[in-house]
Amino acid sequence: MIPTIGIAAFDAVGPLAPWRFERRTPGAHDVQIQIEYCGICHSDLHTVRGEWGGIAYPQVPGHEIVGRVVAVGPNVSKWAVGDRVGVGCMVDSCQSCDPCRDGLEQYCEAGNTGTYGGTEKETGRPTQGGYSTAIVVNEDFVLRIPANLDPAATAPLLCAGVTTWSPLRHWKIGPGKRVGVVGIGGLGHMAVKLAAAMGAEVVVLTTSPSKVEDAKRLGAHHVIVSGDATAMRAHRNTLDLIIDSVSAPHDIEAEMRLLRLDGTLCIVGVSPETHPMPAAFTFIGKRRSLAGSLIGGIAETQEMLDFCGEHGITADIERIAAAEVNTAYERMLKSDVKYRFVIDLATLSAPTA
Amino acid sequence: MIPTIGIAAFDAVGPLAPWRFERRTPGAHDVQIQIEYCGICHSDLHTVRGEWGGIAYPQVPGHEIVGRVVAVGPNVSKWAVGDRVGVGCMVDSCQSCDPCRDGLEQYCEAGNTGTYGGTEKETGRPTQGGYSTAIVVNEDFVLRIPANLDPAATAPLLCAGVTTWSPLRHWKIGPGKRVGVVGIGGLGHMAVKLAAAMGAEVVVLTTSPSKVEDAKRLGAHHVIVSGDATAMRAHRNTLDLIIDSVSAPHDIEAEMRLLRLDGTLCIVGVSPETHPMPAAFTFIGKRRSLAGSLIGGIAETQEMLDFCGEHGITADIERIAAAEVNTAYERMLKSDVKYRFVIDLATLSAPTA
Repeated sequence: MIPTIGIAAFDAVGPLAPWRFERRTPGAHDVQIQIEYCGICHSDLHTVRGEWGGIAYPQVPGHEIVGRVVAVGPNVSKWAVGDRVGVGCMVDSCQSCDPCRDGLEQYCEAGNTGTYGGTEKETGRPTQGGYSTAIVVNEDFVLRIPANLDPAATAPLLCAGVTTWSPLRHWKIGPGKRVGVVGIGGLGHMAVKLAAAMGAEVVVLTTSPSKVEDAKRLGAHHVIVSGDATAMRAHRNTLDLIIDSVSAPHDIEAEMRLLRLDGTLCIVGVSPETHPMPAAFTFIGKRRSLAGSLIGGIAETQEMLDFCGEHGITADIERIAAAEVNTAYERMLKSDVKYRFVIDLATLSAPTA
Repeated sequence: MIPTIGIAAFDAVGPLAPWRFERRTPGAHDVQIQIEYCGICHSDLHTVRGEWGGIAYPQVPGHEIVGRVVAVGPNVSKWAVGDRVGVGCMVDSCQSCDPCRDGLEQYCEAGNTGTYGGTEKETGRPTQGGYSTAIVVNEDFVLRIPANLDPAATAPLLCAGVTTWSPLRHWKIGPGKRVGVVGIGGLGHMAVKLAAAMGAEVVVLTTSPSKVEDAKRLGAHHVIVSGDATAMRAHRNTLDLIIDSVSAPHDIEAEMRLLRLDGTLCIVGVSPETHPMPAAFTFIGKRRSLAGSLIGGIAETQEMLDFCGEHGITADIERIAAAEVNTAYERMLKSDVKYRFVIDLATLSAPTA
C-alpha cells in the first residue's frame, strides 16, 4: 500500500483537513502518480457537502489532477517514470459497453468510476481524489500533459476544459460557426478560450458588467450584459451553439432565441433547481434543441490537451497552498475567483494529530 | 377572379358558416385547384378562435387539402388539368433564403405564407384555407397525390403526416431504431404508422387504456399506459427518438428518461402553457436533447406522400359534410375522433343569405 496524505472532508458541514490514508499498491496495469497540482471544481464542494447524495467520509475530493509518474505496473505500456500526466473525473469504466467502445466512457452503461466518491473496483473502497500527494490509476485513464504548458494552470483542463471541449466538438464548432457562452467562471472561461481557438465567433452572455473586458481578453468577439435588450435582438437567430455554464435557474428561453435554425443550447452546469421551461414554439419555430453534456471521454480529453498544447491554452488560475482550501471554498461560493483555484500539493503536510 | 364558397369564422366565438369570396385569377405560375377534401387540424380551431394571436375575419381555415387541377397558368410546367394534387400548411415563401434553398421552406427567414391566416403576396389580402371549393396556389407549393391512395384519407397527410415525417427523417429513423410516440391523435397516429413503416420499433405512450389495442393495430410494438412504472422502467434508456404530440403540459422528464445516449424528444404539439422543465441531469447524464419540429418542407412533403403511396398509408378518418364542421370542432375538443375529421367539399352549398 502507498501511504498518502489527503485533504479530506470528515462530514457534510465541517472544514476540510489533512488526513492519512493509503492508495492501493500499483497492479499490473496501474500507474502511480505523485500529484503536483489539483484544481478546485464546484463539484468538489457539492459532493463533500452531500448535496448530490450521501457519501462516505472521510472524503478527499479533486478531479483536476496533474503530476509525475513515479512507478508503473509490469504490464503498463503507455507510461514511464518521470512522465508528466493528468487524471480527470474518471478512473475506471466497464470498457466493454457501446459508449466505452465509442470512447464515451463518461456515459458508461455500468456507470464510470468517479475519481472520488466512487467505488474502487480493485479494493471495494471509496475512491479518493486529487487533493492528495499520490494517486494510483489504471493506465487507460491517465492523460499526457503537453510539455509546454504550465502544469498548475493545466490542471483545470482535466474537468473544466474537457466539459466545454466535448460539446464544442460534438456539435462541430469551427470556423464560420457562432458560439454563445453563458457565464464566465471556471467552465465558461474555458469555453471562450477553446471556441475562439477553434476559429468560431464567440458571443459571451454575462450578468457582470465587470467581466466585459475580461471576456474580450479571453477571446470573446461580442459580450452581452444581461438585460441589454438591444444586444439580444442584434444576435437573435444567429448562434449555432450555446454553452450554458450557469448552475442556477435562469432564463433559458431568452438564450434560446439567439439560436439559429437547428441550433443547440447545451447545459453543462448542474442546476439543483430546474430552469423555467421555454415555450414550445421556441423549440418548434426553428427546430432548436436544448441538450446537456457530461465531461468528456478519455480520447477526447487527450485530444483537448494536445489542442491546448498546440495553441498554448491553459486556465486562468489562482494558485493556493493546501492550508487555504477552506478559504477557497468560501470564495468560490461567492464566485470570487478568476477563474479556478489550484492547490499546490507540495505544500501539503501530514496531519499533526 | 374565381368565385369561391368557403366555410368561414366570422369572429372568435361564433360558429363557422358558408361565405362567398373570390380567389385570385391564376397567374403565370399558378395552379387552380377544385378542392375535394380538407382535413380538420387543431391549428384551425386555435387560429379562428384567436388563440394564436389576432386574425382578420372572415377567416376560412384548413391546410390539409386534396383536389383536382382545373386550370394552370401559362408558365406552369409541373402540373396539368386533371392531376390530383394536395396543398399543405404553406402556399408561399421567399424561396431565396438559406432554409428555402435547403428545402426547409417552413423555416423561411422571411416567414412562410400560411395557407390561411397569412397574407397573399399577389393581392395583399388574407390567405383563405381549404374549407372551400377552390384554391389558387403557386405551382411550387403543390404536391402530387399518389393514385392508389384514398383522396379523403390522404388529406391529413399534408399536415399531420409531414409534421411527424419530418422529425422521423431528420433524426434518421429506420430499421434498428426505437421510436416513442406520445399521444394517439391526429399527429400521433400518423407517427406510429410512419415510424413502423420505416422499420423502427415503436413504443406508444398513452393516457387512455382504451387506445392500447388501437395503437397496436396502427403498428405499435409496445404500448405503455401512463402511470405504469414497471413498463416505464423496462423501456428506460432505450429510445432513439420520441415524437411528443400532446399539446398540453405534461411530464416531459418521465419521457426523457426513456431516451438512450444522444436520444432526442421532439415536441410537435404546441402547448399553450409550458411543460414542467426536466432536471438538468436528465439532459446531461446521457447527452439527451429536447427539440421541436415544425411541419415539413415541400420536397419532404412529396417524399412522405410517395412513401405513403408505396406503403399504402393514409390517415384514419371520419368523413363529414360541410354542415357538420361546428359539431366536429366540439368533438375534436373532447378528442372524440379516430383520428381526423375530413370535410367532403362536394357537400358545401352557397350561403342562403
